[in-house]
Amino acid sequence: MIKVGIVGATGYTGSELLRILATHPNVAVTAVTSRSEEGVAVAKMFPNLRGYLDIGFTLPTVENLSACDVVFFATPHGVAQAMMSDFTDKNIKIIDLSADFRLKDIELWESWYKQEHACPELVAKAVYGLPEVNRTQIQDADLIACPGCYPTAVQLGFLPLLEHDLVDTGRLIADAKSGVSGAGRSASVGGLLPECSDSFKAYGVSGHRHGPEIQQGLNAASKQTVGLTFVPHLVPMIRGIEATLYAELKGAAKDMALEDIQAIYEARYQAEPFVDVMPLGSLPDTRSVRGSNICRLALHRQPGSDMLIVVSVIDNLVKGASGQAVQNMNIMFGLDERAGIQHVPLMP
Amino acid sequence: MIKVGIVGATGYTGSELLRILATHPNVAVTAVTSRSEEGVAVAKMFPNLRGYLDIGFTLPTVENLSACDVVFFATPHGVAQAMMSDFTDKNIKIIDLSADFRLKDIELWESWYKQEHACPELVAKAVYGLPEVNRTQIQDADLIACPGCYPTAVQLGFLPLLEHDLVDTGRLIADAKSGVSGAGRSASVGGLLPECSDSFKAYGVSGHRHGPEIQQGLNAASKQTVGLTFVPHLVPMIRGIEATLYAELKGAAKDMALEDIQAIYEARYQAEPFVDVMPLGSLPDTRSVRGSNICRLALHRQPGSDMLIVVSVIDNLVKGASGQAVQNMNIMFGLDERAGIQHVPLMP
Amino acid sequence: MIKVGIVGATGYTGSELLRILATHPNVAVTAVTSRSEEGVAVAKMFPNLRGYLDIGFTLPTVENLSACDVVFFATPHGVAQAMMSDFTDKNIKIIDLSADFRLKDIELWESWYKQEHACPELVAKAVYGLPEVNRTQIQDADLIACPGCYPTAVQLGFLPLLEHDLVDTGRLIADAKSGVSGAGRSASVGGLLPECSDSFKAYGVSGHRHGPEIQQGLNAASKQTVGLTFVPHLVPMIRGIEATLYAELKGAAKDMALEDIQAIYEARYQAEPFVDVMPLGSLPDTRSVRGSNICRLALHRQPGSDMLIVVSVIDNLVKGASGQAVQNMNIMFGLDERAGIQHVPLMP
Amino acid sequence: MIKVGIVGATGYTGSELLRILATHPNVAVTAVTSRSEEGVAVAKMFPNLRGYLDIGFTLPTVENLSACDVVFFATPHGVAQAMMSDFTDKNIKIIDLSADFRLKDIELWESWYKQEHACPELVAKAVYGLPEVNRTQIQDADLIACPGCYPTAVQLGFLPLLEHDLVDTGRLIADAKSGVSGAGRSASVGGLLPECSDSFKAYGVSGHRHGPEIQQGLNAASKQTVGLTFVPHLVPMIRGIEATLYAELKGAAKDMALEDIQAIYEARYQAEPFVDVMPLGSLPDTRSVRGSNICRLALHRQPGSDMLIVVSVIDNLVKGASGQAVQNMNIMFGLDERAGIQHVPLMP
Repeated sequence: MIKVGIVGATGYTGSELLRILATHPNVAVTAVTSRSEEGVAVAKMFPNLRGYLDIGFTLPTVENLSACDVVFFATPHGVAQAMMSDFTDKNIKIIDLSADFRLKDIELWESWYKQEHACPELVAKAVYGLPEVNRTQIQDADLIACPGCYPTAVQLGFLPLLEHDLVDTGRLIADAKSGVSGAGRSASVGGLLPECSDSFKAYGVSGHRHGPEIQQGLNAASKQTVGLTFVPHLVPMIRGIEATLYAELKGAAKDMALEDIQAIYEARYQAEPFVDVMPLGSLPDTRSVRGSNICRLALHRQPGSDMLIVVSVIDNLVKGASGQAVQNMNIMFGLDERAGIQHVPLMP
Repeated sequence: MIKVGIVGATGYTGSELLRILATHPNVAVTAVTSRSEEGVAVAKMFPNLRGYLDIGFTLPTVENLSACDVVFFATPHGVAQAMMSDFTDKNIKIIDLSADFRLKDIELWESWYKQEHACPELVAKAVYGLPEVNRTQIQDADLIACPGCYPTAVQLGFLPLLEHDLVDTGRLIADAKSGVSGAGRSASVGGLLPECSDSFKAYGVSGHRHGPEIQQGLNAASKQTVGLTFVPHLVPMIRGIEATLYAELKGAAKDMALEDIQAIYEARYQAEPFVDVMPLGSLPDTRSVRGSNICRLALHRQPGSDMLIVVSVIDNLVKGASGQAVQNMNIMFGLDERAGIQHVPLMP
Repeated sequence: MIKVGIVGATGYTGSELLRILATHPNVAVTAVTSRSEEGVAVAKMFPNLRGYLDIGFTLPTVENLSACDVVFFATPHGVAQAMMSDFTDKNIKIIDLSADFRLKDIELWESWYKQEHACPELVAKAVYGLPEVNRTQIQDADLIACPGCYPTAVQLGFLPLLEHDLVDTGRLIADAKSGVSGAGRSASVGGLLPECSDSFKAYGVSGHRHGPEIQQGLNAASKQTVGLTFVPHLVPMIRGIEATLYAELKGAAKDMALEDIQAIYEARYQAEPFVDVMPLGSLPDTRSVRGSNICRLALHRQPGSDMLIVVSVIDNLVKGASGQAVQNMNIMFGLDERAGIQHVPLMP
Repeated sequence: MIKVGIVGATGYTGSELLRILATHPNVAVTAVTSRSEEGVAVAKMFPNLRGYLDIGFTLPTVENLSACDVVFFATPHGVAQAMMSDFTDKNIKIIDLSADFRLKDIELWESWYKQEHACPELVAKAVYGLPEVNRTQIQDADLIACPGCYPTAVQLGFLPLLEHDLVDTGRLIADAKSGVSGAGRSASVGGLLPECSDSFKAYGVSGHRHGPEIQQGLNAASKQTVGLTFVPHLVPMIRGIEATLYAELKGAAKDMALEDIQAIYEARYQAEPFVDVMPLGSLPDTRSVRGSNICRLALHRQPGSDMLIVVSVIDNLVKGASGQAVQNMNIMFGLDERAGIQHVPLMP
């Protein structure tokens, strides 16, 4: 059994890791840490785990984590990088669900996250944990920077278009929508049910931290600097991200049948266990992936228009965070990539 | 008092008309019709009206409506046009909330609504009831084609840009989101709470009936044929539309400060009682207009990008339907344009 | 115009007072205070008020409030009582929406609210502002203790039974359910949408502060000490309270037809502008009173059973708080009791 | 592998059976029937099953089901009993999720379901599939009448009190609340999101079909005829039932410490894999069992009161229907009772 530790398990990505790992066939959760909840039973805070996980929170010290084979950081940005030096030479693999190691450009990271990076030397070493792009590097990685939720949905939707150079990369648009769990489990007025239920809004319209992360991935796929407009929105629901992506077909691609582009998508993702290219005409809803690690994609084109529209849905807490983290772990440890993350989506 | 009749008052736009008109200071609701509910008290079907409206449903016959000064059609498309001939020479003003008279191009209407138009000769005579564009014509109109909900939100958001020729009109994008009441009050599986609560999806991605209506309005504003991609989405909420609009600044407009574009919007809508151009930096949510006839707009531009982003929110049942219908009535009858539609939005 | 001040207007009852008073025909809101938001425009915090209320927050000092005719306290318990001495001899009427003056038994108050009462001498002077019970005293009151939300729904439902001595008062049960706005507008984890949406729970099952307040009112109505079990629940909705009340008919009342009990209810509330005894067979939902000051009641009895079941619904922020507070103000100032609180419920 | 057929798989209990059985280690789903969807791929109607279940709907004929070892009926009442004769002598076990065989009193069934029973001779033979009561009989049963959702939550909550004769059985009260999926997946106006979202109501207050089913179970547990008031409510959520149960302690039980009653509950359910008696002080919410087969119970008593309050929560589609059906199947076929139904509840 792989011995797993989780730092920061009181948030949504942490508790989702616990939900997944509690029944993972190859894993024993041996350390769950929280500064504020030391000594409390995990199942007291998260009653859904009663009977599944008999462990208490401990302090996030290296001692408490040193017996682990892999440690997940489900912490706000800044925490993982501050603790990294403690793990040097410990032969413990690190999977960081925060933004600390996602951006290769350290200046860019520092400008968006308003702080100095604590271990810039590790950034180059970190592997961006999007298996559909970096599976080989993930196998040998010691430090995984797990992608953000929006970046996962948007990149998986755009990738085949960029890899095949089918669209005008100067004006890509990603209009993305997320459930409220994406904002985390910290007390706030804005996240109260009376503030965000039965309502809808855009936020971060003038710029959002996931923008540069998405752009980094799209630049790599297209081997050039793309122009991206990314606008996130808040949906009155718990889980789920939907991204509606707009890209203008260019050159010969304007004359391609939608079926041909569909074929390119199907070929690109045929071997991927967690990307589902739906049949033409499909309208995926977020509930069709609720609680699962699946990303579903659908392609559309309106009559007389060269605008290709891609719809991408994921569960932000699973494929957008904790499920993808476990997928990375499975790859790193040579397990079946699907182990422990084959939940059938909960619908309705 | 203006004597008002409503045809098809059992749906959401009909009941919303009743909610508004029940306390309108210049109106007496004298006829409310429904084929299926003849004889039933309106307040029995809609208990929110208990004590406000003491009237029963009657059959939608001309006799039952002939004493009215104005008749609202809150019916599915096809109904108003089929009854129009009954109202000829009756000196009754008609405000149609359905799509029957919105599109000036009859062939286009017939292709989208899959039926022959029953009175094409009235289409040219009908005035498109968007007061912010057609106030003068509305004053003298006998037949109003009340705009659709998406078209109201999208047109009000784009108009100043097009009227001032600031953007590339070849690739306008309107990513719009609506509450479920937009789908109407007919029994359906898709509208059941367990099917659409706690979930989000795009629909009509390959083409939606409101597309040509929006395009007609944008063409008129820009005096040319625009290229528009319109994609609607379903939000797990009751009321509200949010439209996120994307348009690329062109020529000299690329160098305009956002403040200057903001000033253009403020000037355009300064005299409009129901359009609120919010201060720069604002992120309007749909609840900020819940139950009210207000459209709120906010402008954004991301650093280093020429893409102008306009956020537009309305209550789909009020400014997107029944409130706007009453606004039209107020104009037609020389009343204070705001009479009866000054509800403070209900928040939270 | 009555000059109104509001202390603590950043919470839900405060903002709801603002929504109501902004269009009240006899009121000018002249002071809105908040310790944390001094200098901020009220309409910036509550954008629904843009165009309706042009005033900023000031500090809650007596100076800022001394020109008011009436001051509403929309504050947590403890605040109003601590400021009361500042208002002595100021000839300003006080309407307190908090729990500070609701319980006549000061020891009981102190045991439930875990603090010493700051001005016990005012408790006897305060009038409990349930107009359906205390209208005459309210007319002459200087200090109103506005009833809690649960207590309003439960008392209005039980009153006729107790006043007519129809039921076993030893085992009354009030199973009550509230929307999340009842918990207030303070940052919390428990109130986050992902924590309480799409879920339901009982809380305060072993005892809740509104229990003794309800009991005090029921005791008075029945002229004896009743036995009450009150259990509140949290509903994943914004507004609304539903209380299902159980009382066992006794003696001759066992043989009364439900129609006769219905007649008693109708007579009891016939002159009440805001209590609607619905026809037998009705199933009131909370949305039928959304945004309005109405309480709707319905009576039921199951075949073969002596248990009378009363269903009572209110909007917790209106009849359960701010609307009732304005109703009290109207009575105190000799206005039409319905002035400013005649909103048609917003449905759907 | 057990070959399983499902009749009526287009509803919520049917699709939930599919979700569970798709990953059940001992099951092969070999026939899924629907009159209306013949020939359609199951995963087309339920996209959450894409990749998990590759089968299409067939007609509900005996031929299509005759190779099954067990057939689940997830149909409206009346359907299973009408088809029963087709299965005589087929050696196929039947698990009926409808109400057809739940009531032993056939007259009572006929009076509540307004039709003649089609095979009264099978009613006595049918085993009521509440494993916590009838496990032994279930092992040998050929026909299981799976309990209703409300009856499961209410019976499990009351049973220990009745079995130990601790309470006044003359006035038991079950105030129960259900998510909207309990109303089924048929097109209706009342179930539309705009009709039941952000609202709450009681229904069936004058009598509900689950009342006699609950009473039958409580009578059996207490070996006498109990007096029960059961009132269901509709919660604006997808899944989940919460029942708040009231029973007055009697005789010596009045003097029992709550800890002693807690001990009785813990002993009663100690060996039950799916009943969780939570520690004293707990407030279970429905999300803590979302998607799982668990029933959680919590006991409360208010100071100075003899009323015992039991809170019971289940997922209406799992322990209240399809999960319990699979639990019955596991028992009937000698499998691990927990096989295939050990999903960790999805929270948040």
